[in-house]
Amino acid sequence: MYISGIGRTEFGFSKQSLPQLIYKAIYEAIKDSPISIEQIDAIFVSNFLSGLCDNQLHLNSIVSSLLPELKIPIIRIETACSSGATALYQSLISMPHYRNVLVVGVEKMTHVDNIKLTGHIASASDRTLDQEQGLIFPANYALIAQQHFQRYNSTHEDLVLISYKNHQNANLNPLAHFNYKKVTMEMIENAPLVAAPLTLFDCSPISDGAAALVISDKRTSSRDIEIIGMGIGTDFISLSQRKELTSFEATKIAAKKAYDMAKVGPEDINVAELHDCFTISELISMEDLGFCKPGEGKYLVREKRTMIKGDIPINTDGGLKANGHPMGASGISQVYEIVMQLRKEAGKRQVQNANLGLSHSLGGIGGTSVVHIFRGE
Amino acid sequence: MYISGIGRTEFGFSKQSLPQLIYKAIYEAIKDSPISIEQIDAIFVSNFLSGLCDNQLHLNSIVSSLLPELKIPIIRIETACSSGATALYQSLISMPHYRNVLVVGVEKMTHVDNIKLTGHIASASDRTLDQEQGLIFPANYALIAQQHFQRYNSTHEDLVLISYKNHQNANLNPLAHFNYKKVTMEMIENAPLVAAPLTLFDCSPISDGAAALVISDKRTSSRDIEIIGMGIGTDFISLSQRKELTSFEATKIAAKKAYDMAKVGPEDINVAELHDCFTISELISMEDLGFCKPGEGKYLVREKRTMIKGDIPINTDGGLKANGHPMGASGISQVYEIVMQLRKEAGKRQVQNANLGLSHSLGGIGGTSVVHIFRGE
Repeated sequence: MYISGIGRTEFGFSKQSLPQLIYKAIYEAIKDSPISIEQIDAIFVSNFLSGLCDNQLHLNSIVSSLLPELKIPIIRIETACSSGATALYQSLISMPHYRNVLVVGVEKMTHVDNIKLTGHIASASDRTLDQEQGLIFPANYALIAQQHFQRYNSTHEDLVLISYKNHQNANLNPLAHFNYKKVTMEMIENAPLVAAPLTLFDCSPISDGAAALVISDKRTSSRDIEIIGMGIGTDFISLSQRKELTSFEATKIAAKKAYDMAKVGPEDINVAELHDCFTISELISMEDLGFCKPGEGKYLVREKRTMIKGDIPINTDGGLKANGHPMGASGISQVYEIVMQLRKEAGKRQVQNANLGLSHSLGGIGGTSVVHIFRGE
Repeated sequence: MYISGIGRTEFGFSKQSLPQLIYKAIYEAIKDSPISIEQIDAIFVSNFLSGLCDNQLHLNSIVSSLLPELKIPIIRIETACSSGATALYQSLISMPHYRNVLVVGVEKMTHVDNIKLTGHIASASDRTLDQEQGLIFPANYALIAQQHFQRYNSTHEDLVLISYKNHQNANLNPLAHFNYKKVTMEMIENAPLVAAPLTLFDCSPISDGAAALVISDKRTSSRDIEIIGMGIGTDFISLSQRKELTSFEATKIAAKKAYDMAKVGPEDINVAELHDCFTISELISMEDLGFCKPGEGKYLVREKRTMIKGDIPINTDGGLKANGHPMGASGISQVYEIVMQLRKEAGKRQVQNANLGLSHSLGGIGGTSVVHIFRGE
């Protein structure tokens, strides 16, 4: 299966409506693909919070309204922050029935009051075990960071390096939320605490945006990127139910499936997009995906190996941290970036000799994890 | 593909939590099937409003928490009130990859304030075109009823007959929301107006409940029911965008696909479950599914042909009207009833010579429509 077209909006603060964002991403993806909109056989739309943020569910019918000539299956997928990656996964599972499928993800959140929005986002965690205890997302990931620091002697300085790298990368990505912003090491080191040890620059922002992919069962042009591996894993929704806090079982399950299917290993990956909703999750995910042993992610960071010129560049688009994190779109925009890299169209942030790419997306605190592997020419 | 197990909870007012309802339905379906829970390869969970009613999204991870030994793909599907039927559709689309799949749908709403809940349910309609105009669901379906009465000379008395039939059927269904309630023609005829011409007894109730199905790629026992046809259609989300108010284009699309795949026609169907969120939608759906010509549904009703002893019995479980309408579960409980009928296990409400069954589910005001066709032995 191939990705024959990619499209996305700018991420950040948008005045466009949810349907307008969806339309823009679809338009860009179709424009980018040799496949026309009339050749699309089904659409998967991913979104996390439009019910809570806009009292707008039934997005599949919203998409149908935008494309009235198409009377095709359109289905909404939701698995919290991994909704986009899950929609891609489910579209690939469905491909024996279709020739071309469109996957589009969207989120619009910046218009919502911050305190309310924090509560909305907490809907990805367990109502009784987490929400009623006040265990919002920064607090959950702070617990994980504390455990990781204790167990492996990783430090907050490692997270600072991750944040700095991702902001530098976003400066090279014109569509990134923080493309405009020059962030220095000093700014990150002096950032206000959010939930110890995590500071403001450890946390991904609230962003609006949409992204879309055209998936085709046959190669449509030399710019197509092949999808060679996929996996999804699920786990307990609450940290309180788990034995292990310093890695995500769901990622290990998803990664094993994806590597086995692709017949490659982590050592073969040239460029990767990892789910850095918080910097600590980039660190842990490097370990869960096998880019290094457990606890050794810090060395990859310190040795600059995850920077664009390193041997395993991670989050070249700026990651969720600096590219932005419109949840329903994030898992799809990660794939957008991998396709740009494998096509050698990533411009100033191009990774040299990028042939195999990987994308990784988390729902909640690792209650869902999705991994895809891609091959360029 | 076969349905090898079915399970559901009682519908109505429940004190059980969302996860408890899910667990109960899964437990019953697995108990009913020769397939064990360890043999399940993937789960599709359908729900419409748990984000708005309980601030609980990421239900796939909730299901994973209930079944911690299974580290399998679990995905949430949402298409408003047709979520359950769409989850079944998507599970069937996915079957080339799996041997056994579980589909579970759930809704818990009765604890929510009625005015708030009316707003939540309106999230299935367009925020700008419908919600901001105050066009809540009873109003939308009232507009449709008015148009149908004008165009075809159908009357409110036809809707009264539909409501009466469904309440009578629910009296024969121990799991139905209104199983306990004796409803007379006088009660229905004298019911208070909700949105002219629709009265209280034209509207389905607010119900809690869950339902589940085990889908298997091969026959597992003589009680299995084969799924021989499926179709999904989508349409504009708002009535204001459509040319036609007295039928649903999405149903016609879904029905044609399902009939073509099953190689049967409407005249071959022995028993059907139709989406009667309002009595008018049962009438219109009979016509859209081809059980009669447009405008002639009223004759089927008046001639008692849709009653259990008629030649095309509809909503033998009481329908959404009287069995109840826990949205995320409704499309699945419809299939539960068809399986009971085709297995000849429906007891007092058993349809004689039921061999071919059909289920039909609507999202919103027909923005989504899903049809499945089933064959017994």
